[in-house]
Amino acid sequence: LRRGATNNLKKALGKIHPADIAHLFRYFDLKDQKKLLVLVPDMEQAADVFSELESDSQAKLAEQLEKDFLISLVEMMADDDSAELIRSLPEELAEDILAAIHDDHSDDVEQLLGYDEDTAGGIMSTDVFALGQDLTVKQAIEALQDSEDYEMVFYVYVVDEHNHLVGVLSLRQLLTVPPATSLADVMTSDVLRVRTDMDQEEVAELVAKYNILAIPVVDEHGKLMGLITVDDVIDVMRDEATEDILRMAGTSEEELLYGYKSFHVARLRLPWLLTTLVGGVVTGTLMWYFKATLEQVIMLISFIPVITGMGGNVGGQTSTIIVRGFATGRIDFSMIRQVFFKELRVGLIMGTTCGLVIAAVAMIWHQNIYLGLVVGLAMVMAISVAACMGVLVTAFFKKVGIDPAIASSPFVQTVNDITGILIYFSTATLFLHHLI
Amino acid sequence: LRRGATNNLKKALGKIHPADIAHLFRYFDLKDQKKLLVLVPDMEQAADVFSELESDSQAKLAEQLEKDFLISLVEMMADDDSAELIRSLPEELAEDILAAIHDDHSDDVEQLLGYDEDTAGGIMSTDVFALGQDLTVKQAIEALQDSEDYEMVFYVYVVDEHNHLVGVLSLRQLLTVPPATSLADVMTSDVLRVRTDMDQEEVAELVAKYNILAIPVVDEHGKLMGLITVDDVIDVMRDEATEDILRMAGTSEEELLYGYKSFHVARLRLPWLLTTLVGGVVTGTLMWYFKATLEQVIMLISFIPVITGMGGNVGGQTSTIIVRGFATGRIDFSMIRQVFFKELRVGLIMGTTCGLVIAAVAMIWHQNIYLGLVVGLAMVMAISVAACMGVLVTAFFKKVGIDPAIASSPFVQTVNDITGILIYFSTATLFLHHLI
Repeated sequence: LRRGATNNLKKALGKIHPADIAHLFRYFDLKDQKKLLVLVPDMEQAADVFSELESDSQAKLAEQLEKDFLISLVEMMADDDSAELIRSLPEELAEDILAAIHDDHSDDVEQLLGYDEDTAGGIMSTDVFALGQDLTVKQAIEALQDSEDYEMVFYVYVVDEHNHLVGVLSLRQLLTVPPATSLADVMTSDVLRVRTDMDQEEVAELVAKYNILAIPVVDEHGKLMGLITVDDVIDVMRDEATEDILRMAGTSEEELLYGYKSFHVARLRLPWLLTTLVGGVVTGTLMWYFKATLEQVIMLISFIPVITGMGGNVGGQTSTIIVRGFATGRIDFSMIRQVFFKELRVGLIMGTTCGLVIAAVAMIWHQNIYLGLVVGLAMVMAISVAACMGVLVTAFFKKVGIDPAIASSPFVQTVNDITGILIYFSTATLFLHHLI
Repeated sequence: LRRGATNNLKKALGKIHPADIAHLFRYFDLKDQKKLLVLVPDMEQAADVFSELESDSQAKLAEQLEKDFLISLVEMMADDDSAELIRSLPEELAEDILAAIHDDHSDDVEQLLGYDEDTAGGIMSTDVFALGQDLTVKQAIEALQDSEDYEMVFYVYVVDEHNHLVGVLSLRQLLTVPPATSLADVMTSDVLRVRTDMDQEEVAELVAKYNILAIPVVDEHGKLMGLITVDDVIDVMRDEATEDILRMAGTSEEELLYGYKSFHVARLRLPWLLTTLVGGVVTGTLMWYFKATLEQVIMLISFIPVITGMGGNVGGQTSTIIVRGFATGRIDFSMIRQVFFKELRVGLIMGTTCGLVIAAVAMIWHQNIYLGLVVGLAMVMAISVAACMGVLVTAFFKKVGIDPAIASSPFVQTVNDITGILIYFSTATLFLHHLI
């Protein structure tokens, strides 16, 4: 790239799949990415490469490009990809581009921009191959032969004169019926469809559940507005999984947008840290409140980390199981009772095991049977309570409409630190005269 | 179901999509599931319903069914679904079924059972629509019209006389060329394909990257063995995400198989808990070692939970970002240096913020400037070290070939508890004469 052997490079680029070129971009800085993109021999391929980039790299690169080049690029891109790009650009640039691109394309893009980006309308493409119900199969095949614009045609959607979706046909069906039949006679009229305002996660669930390749999107009157194909669904599912995982760790998907901007990243992660900080101070205050007990029996300190650590871990495990159960539909509210008692049983089993181990450690280490008793008992209780809290806190967050992934790790752990310390020191205070 | 209005129920079931019936099964116990399945009016639909069940429910239900019914069911199922079911059955039952089903089907199933279940061979279907390269387009269309067995045909694969994959055609291409052309003249000969032994996760990545609907699977000689469609890929991606999330919490996907068997579930989660337990005891021993410091300055105890809690959280966040980065391909080893320094910077920023807050809290609470200094300084160091450890431990696990998701939460947190306590008490001991 640096040696400027541009002609050879151009030839080579012409032969590589756009997705592979896009993958290469990760290893270059913005300046080189720009050079490389301009070198891609034809504009359509350049648009494909650009569309394949992650949306954060796309936005950054777009700001670096010459405006004319960017405009030609957007004109070549599919309308849903264009809308997604424009959404992530600074407002002024976005408006300039919308004003400059070709009318047809800009109407579609503007329409798409009108939908919330997490809904079916926000991820659909308006390039949907639909035919009138009065056409014959022969006419449909002819229309199909002229339909170069539609890259992925698997189903032919059938609409009435007002563009209401009335049926669907597979390409294979077209091949297997007499050419003179009208579409209305062979189509399946019971078409699975989604509304433009349906949440993208629900759309993904539907496509996964019914194993379909594409789902048509209609407005509130049943008019065909667009199409969501299975490759969009794959992106949605991957993004949702990433978001869940990051939320469980107390950060957000936006972090990926900021990349190496440390201050932005820190700002995203800080809210949870400060919550943990408050929780830690509360736990510390509790310990301070029990300092008389602690001063009398200093050996109690050696088991503080193990009690809080185990409670946090068990709560985290339970909460994770529930979060993922809700996300994949394995768990719903009608099962919460069952799940609660299962986790309680599991907690008791694990608590007893760990309690026996730690009791033995305590007795041998400090040569004190009562210390063993106190630590072991506290462990059984702390773990069982943590398991129950894991279920209850997560279900509560879900019930009040907060993403339960947020409830996971940091929050549950802080709660369990507090209950763990309370349980431990209360037990110790109860047996205090045996311990001294 | 209980009132035995079986006739009405049969009619109703006939009209419901198999995926929806399968969804209903979640709300019934095994006995009712069995009754309901037997009621499904035709065997093919029953097989579809059965295929849609989660693999754990499938195996449990299969053991309850009459053997003859189960055998007819398996005969109706797609070969890949049959193989998946047989894999999860007790050995004896699996052999009986394999022996009883029709020869054609059992050959295919046995072949599939020969592949590792996490590879392309393990998830592919052998029902692939392939035609000889010498056929004409007209003959191909005729073959397609007779091909009722292949539910999802989008591409026509072209093979030579030894069944080597030599090309591919889309259905639309078939419609747009003259009927007398031979397939060899119109096919694309550069076909994206995978080997039977490729890991299923890599297959999923390829399908997602190139936005394709199906990918042909070949053996080491290039012979066409099967096909993986995008709906299989969706299942793979969802399972992998679930597995990652559960591993991060220190449990495993097997947990879902055991459902409400508390002892099994506890056994799966215990290894991590016991690791945490050992970690907790180590941390406790360290605190015990510093007990002289602690006895002299008892107010130090009030900040133990906040120091260890924050370190654990930051380490968990960093580690999660890296784990997910590796999983989605956003991060690879060539970037680890960059990522390390980014996380260090983020850690310093967050550490300074939290350090200032906690220093203020300490000064106001205990009216001691030096305590504030010690706690604040320890916080900055503990958080920065935790951020670095999050990167290093995760990258190390990845490097030595252990799933880095395991390295996350529990392990990183335990490590950070230990370093946090060490940093805190060392700092306190250093400033001891100011604190007393």
